[in-house]
Amino acid sequence: MRYRLTLSYRGTRYAGWQRQDNAVSVQQVVEEAVSRLAGQPVRVTGASRTDAGVHARGQVAHLDLERPLPPRALVHGVNPHLPEDVRVLAAAEVGEGFHARKSALGKEYRYRLSRAEVVSPLDSLFVVSVPARIDLGRMTRAAAYLPGRHDFSAFALAGGSHGQPFRTIRSAVWTEAGEEIVLSVTGDGFLRGMVRALVGTLIDVGLGRREPESLAELLQGRPRSEAGPTAPARGLVLESVFYPVTREVVVP
Amino acid sequence: MRYRLTLSYRGTRYAGWQRQDNAVSVQQVVEEAVSRLAGQPVRVTGASRTDAGVHARGQVAHLDLERPLPPRALVHGVNPHLPEDVRVLAAAEVGEGFHARKSALGKEYRYRLSRAEVVSPLDSLFVVSVPARIDLGRMTRAAAYLPGRHDFSAFALAGGSHGQPFRTIRSAVWTEAGEEIVLSVTGDGFLRGMVRALVGTLIDVGLGRREPESLAELLQGRPRSEAGPTAPARGLVLESVFYPVTREVVVP
Repeated sequence: MRYRLTLSYRGTRYAGWQRQDNAVSVQQVVEEAVSRLAGQPVRVTGASRTDAGVHARGQVAHLDLERPLPPRALVHGVNPHLPEDVRVLAAAEVGEGFHARKSALGKEYRYRLSRAEVVSPLDSLFVVSVPARIDLGRMTRAAAYLPGRHDFSAFALAGGSHGQPFRTIRSAVWTEAGEEIVLSVTGDGFLRGMVRALVGTLIDVGLGRREPESLAELLQGRPRSEAGPTAPARGLVLESVFYPVTREVVVP
Repeated sequence: MRYRLTLSYRGTRYAGWQRQDNAVSVQQVVEEAVSRLAGQPVRVTGASRTDAGVHARGQVAHLDLERPLPPRALVHGVNPHLPEDVRVLAAAEVGEGFHARKSALGKEYRYRLSRAEVVSPLDSLFVVSVPARIDLGRMTRAAAYLPGRHDFSAFALAGGSHGQPFRTIRSAVWTEAGEEIVLSVTGDGFLRGMVRALVGTLIDVGLGRREPESLAELLQGRPRSEAGPTAPARGLVLESVFYPVTREVVVP
């Protein structure tokens, strides 16, 4: 029986989702927890390879169990075997055709910035400080270039596009709440490091280091070196992964 | 020269604000950081003895420096000597008569509950899970008994009232945001453990284990054993401490 898991984690102390030889990954601790519950090795496949230090509120993964369990028993059976910074939020039975990565229609990421001169430790695991003079109007004008299908080579880690640098962004919106400004980006796919490179470039725009209109040119396949720096991992959260609507019942 | 500091910390790994012999306190790490900057031992006096595991967004403290520093230099000079879960948010020069605890007119605390069956690790350092069936209407009716001057013995740790169990609550309000429900309490003073004992008792009301009207009786000096349990520390944040308005300039 195949299951879909919805997972949330603080990425702070992990080398990202994907298993690594010399560092602890989220995939590793989830596979170990599920394997302990199942009493046999279980492979868990995630929708997104979140990078080291990146958080998730709604990562999705699939796995197969030889001896089926009610989804609720899966949720409450796995969590006690996980460290406190990783949790299964929900589980559902899905068809054999479901694949967490290949079935995904799109994803939403959020990136949190703060204009506070000193960020409170209640927020600082998840928020990156920027100078208070940052110009949200300029950043909004720059973000307006992002929706649509573009060549995002300027925003991909070296080797991150595998010769397929085109992606479609559905929306890219800044919202403001107190001292925080937050970018929400949805799209049907993202190159490695793409959201953080976009944020680093939009911050450059907000600080007057480049013009909003420069995004139009960058989105025509310019090299990585022409865009802005990669923003820190801790500001980024994988909020959700989208799939075709089905009739499965999600538990809990 | 006397200074007022505004401090924020995640209380997770601390034995509370106050110095302890055998555990690390927030006061200790702040005193060590200020002393390193000043080049001599400096005592830091906090407004509130937050308990082990309790967080602060706006703790206030005062200290004296023999060699005065601009407040901004104090903020940016102390922070590099602090662990990442403690930060000085602001500093101001104040008169010799200012005392962080004795000058305080009141405080605001917030307590976060979540009705999610599994709380996301993005929130779980600061939020306590409660059953989804909890009845916010009952908790709101119970909280309405709190404002006013009462004998809070039923909500004080043993020995926590020092024979002076009367305190005045100014407001106690539940707000709802998604799966979270949050209690904001302001008052001119709080006994040790009082907010957490109030929250534990209000949760009992919300789960039908006691009636909202039972608060009226508890507030007439009943013993601690008649109120509900003490809610976990991690849900509680000292939001701010109130003082008489002065003309000092707060930096930054």
